[in-house]
Parts: sequence; C-alpha cells; structure tokens
Amino acid sequence: CPTLSFKDRVVAVAVNKAMEFGFRTLACASTGNLANAVAAHAAAAGLEAYVFIPDDLEEAKILGSAVYGAKLVRIRGNYDQVNRLCTQIAAEHPWGFVNVNLRAFYSEGSKTLAYEVAEQLGWRLPPAIVVPVASGSLITRIGKAFRELTEIGLVEPLSFKLIGAQATGCSPIAMAVKRGNSEIEPQKPSTIARSLAIGNPADGYYAARDILSSGGTAEDVSDPEIIEAMRLLAETEGIFGETAAGVTVAVARKLFRQGKLNPEEETVLCITGNG
Amino acid sequence: CPTLSFKDRVVAVAVNKAMEFGFRTLACASTGNLANAVAAHAAAAGLEAYVFIPDDLEEAKILGSAVYGAKLVRIRGNYDQVNRLCTQIAAEHPWGFVNVNLRAFYSEGSKTLAYEVAEQLGWRLPPAIVVPVASGSLITRIGKAFRELTEIGLVEPLSFKLIGAQATGCSPIAMAVKRGNSEIEPQKPSTIARSLAIGNPADGYYAARDILSSGGTAEDVSDPEIIEAMRLLAETEGIFGETAAGVTVAVARKLFRQGKLNPEEETVLCITGNG
Repeated sequence: CPTLSFKDRVVAVAVNKAMEFGFRTLACASTGNLANAVAAHAAAAGLEAYVFIPDDLEEAKILGSAVYGAKLVRIRGNYDQVNRLCTQIAAEHPWGFVNVNLRAFYSEGSKTLAYEVAEQLGWRLPPAIVVPVASGSLITRIGKAFRELTEIGLVEPLSFKLIGAQATGCSPIAMAVKRGNSEIEPQKPSTIARSLAIGNPADGYYAARDILSSGGTAEDVSDPEIIEAMRLLAETEGIFGETAAGVTVAVARKLFRQGKLNPEEETVLCITGNG
Repeated sequence: CPTLSFKDRVVAVAVNKAMEFGFRTLACASTGNLANAVAAHAAAAGLEAYVFIPDDLEEAKILGSAVYGAKLVRIRGNYDQVNRLCTQIAAEHPWGFVNVNLRAFYSEGSKTLAYEVAEQLGWRLPPAIVVPVASGSLITRIGKAFRELTEIGLVEPLSFKLIGAQATGCSPIAMAVKRGNSEIEPQKPSTIARSLAIGNPADGYYAARDILSSGGTAEDVSDPEIIEAMRLLAETEGIFGETAAGVTVAVARKLFRQGKLNPEEETVLCITGNG
C-alpha cells in the first residue's frame, strides 16, 4: 500500500481501467485517503490528477496528495456536496473519476482485502468480520468476495457474519440495520472519523441488506470511544491506525460487551488506514 | 511494515531474540524510525519499551513512538552521543537494546530486504543496487544476503555492485570509499537526512570494504539535491519517501550523469522509509 490506506486497492484497479478507456486524467471526490491514493497512482501511471476535497480537511491528510503533483481542488461543503459536484464534472469532461464513472471497477478492487483475509487464515473464511463503513462499498464487496471464493472452491462454505462499524456522528447505515431494514436516511456528518463521514452513502442500501441477510449487525461509537480504541490498538498490537481503525476496534469491543459478538468465536477486524 | 520504514525488518528479528533471552524491556538509540519500530513491536509483544533519541528530533517522527506507549527519553546531543549513553545503560540494566547488545541479530533482519529484491526480480540478483547508508549495517547485510542466496543455489551467481548513498552533510563512508580505503574519519553531521545522520558509523569499515570489493562506489548529495529527488520520486513513481529516499534517488541520478552507473544496466534503488 503506497499511500497507507486500503484505497490503494480500489485505485489500483480503477487506474488500469482508466488507461484502458483512454482517459488521460484521473480524478476523485475524497475525504483524504482516496485523494492520496489517486494522486500517487496517477503519478506512477503518468496521468494528470485532480482531487476534489472538502475545504476543511486536515492539512496532514492533504500533504500526501500535494507531494505527488496532483491538482487539489478544495470545495466549500461536505463530502456529499463534493461528490455531487464531481458527478456533474464527470458528465462534462473526459475524466476518469475513480468513484463516479469508474466506480464499478473501483469497487471490485475492494475484494482483494477479503482475498487476503482468507489467504492469511490459510484459505478459510472467518465466522465474523468487522468492517468500517462509509459508502458501504467495502463491506458489500467483502461479502461478494467471500461468496465468490466459496463458489470457485478455494474455501469451504461457511456462514459468515458481516458487522458494520460507524461513528455515532455519521451512522446512516448502522441506523438502518438497527431498524432492521435497508432504507437509508441521509445524515449531516459530525465526527472525528473524517474518512467515514459520508452522510448519504452510495452503497448504503446494499450494505444494510447484506449485513442483515448475513445474520450480522452494525453498531456506532462516540468520538471519545474512538480515541480510546485507537490508543488500545497502538498499545496492545503496535498498530497506529487512523480514526476509522478506532471506530472498528471500538465497535467490536462494544458488541463483545453487549454479548452480540462471541469472544470464543474467531472475529476479524479490518484496519484500513494508517495514523 | 507496521511503522513504515525498513527498521520493522530488523526489529522483528531483535524482538524475538529479546524474548528468547528473557528480556522484559526493549530499548534502542534512534534517529526516529527505529524508535517507532521498537515502540510498536514491543507493544505487540507485551514488552516495556524505552527509546533514546536526540532532543532536537522533529515532533512528527516522535508521535509514532509515543502513541504505542513507549517511554521516550530525549538526550541533549546527537545520535552518536545517544548511542554511547545506551551502551553504558545496556551494561548496567537487563534491557535488550536492539542496536547495542542485540545488534548481531538485529543486523541479520536487514537481509530480508535483499531476499525480497531477489524474489521480486524472479529469483535473480541485480547487477547494481543503490543503498542509503547510515551505520553501514544495511549495505553490508545486503551483500551478505546476496552471497548466501547464491551459495544455497536460490539464484544464479552474478557479480553485483553495491552503491552507497549518503548526504554530503554526513558522508564518512562515502569519503572513505572515494579515498579508496575502509578507514572511517568520524564527522559531525549536518543534513536534513536525519535518519542517515550517523557521524561515526558502527559498521562503517565493513560497508566501505564491501562496497570497494564489489566493484561498486559511493556518492554524496546536498540537501537541495535531496529535496529535488524526493519531489521527482513522488511525481514520477507515486512514492512519497522520507529524506533518505531522496538521498538514494539523488545519488543514483548523480552517478548516471557522471557515467559511473550505466543506464542500460538494471539498477535497484532501495527506498527504506516513508515520508
């Protein structure tokens, strides 16, 4: 992972499709990690890059994109507004937006995370997996990848629970799951977990549906719980994850305490970004 | 690499030996990257950690160690003085200093970088490899690893040139190589490449000797050349390396321009730390 988040996986697939389609410019709407991944992969592929971000994003997240020579466009608004603008630009310019007009390929890149989990377990599926949820794309593709690995016979069939992790300040998918349906009510995000702050998630419906049909659940945690969990992860595992990692660890802890996850059962936690 | 530099390789070996020896505390003298690696691996292994650093090190480098719960000890002095102090503490306390009393094992961990280079080339040695040089440990162990891979028959014999890369502001090994001998004259470091700023390198003699006997060379580059090379690496390869990466790329560029490296010949550049 050159830019230290799982977004390198999705962009790796998207950039190859962009070149196949003949795009000379790669672009994205981003809360930070995706911007860095697009900037880095575009540089390596010799493409021009434009990254569109909310204007109040932390400087530290942005340094990465700037250093690769990408054009940074700050938009006054939150992620959902940035994303809407990008959809309009994609309709007017011959640019490859990894999470707009290349989204189908981009999402498939997520599956490599699931492949690696299965590989690291010795070609076996885990009975439960906790996944941080923003657009809902990662968790639905993990489910898809596990089913495909089973179909082609690389792993034994096993029923696996998909567990969604969100911050209380932006939890439209967790809310839907708790209500027991797949209808997403958009939210205005307010949380330190900026990389998960998507109030109107593109794949929200599919994420809630797949979580429920897997027999899994979703939970949300407060900002103080996120910080405490980041510290726990660093001090016990030597892993300095970003806030999204704190969300994942805190949700797992909460569900263990509530008796909704079984401590005797193997549970995989997806840590998708570096501090 | 959990802490984003090649120091994770050396500490991975040292921490296992520390536990085998029964040490409950892991420690090091560091210019930054090693401190983070020791702090993270100690946390994961359940050991206490003390990291000793020069007191003028950048805050950004230190954050990593602090988050893992290690005790940070800032010493008024440069790396060579910090290292001397650690040698004294190691004689008095039952602590495993990865780069003092565990140094023999620690250094062996470097060899995994060479194994990976050979593996990525399809189990083949490169005719030339450019390596950033601080203590001189990495470049000598790369030579050792290449010779061992050849001996056990995993790669075909090939004569390979070891190329040492240093910053002009701290270049005792490059100076020795340019004079054509292995005698190190200690220097007082002054360069932005902090992770390479060792004025009196522990393995300097061996590094100069191995470089010369491989038919390789060493070169040094100025701070402006380092910054320019960091930018070049980011904008063309999508890799945001730290200053040591800039040293490596700038030295390779200088040697190509001087005709001392052949652009037709495959040359591997070791990028050992993340920006």
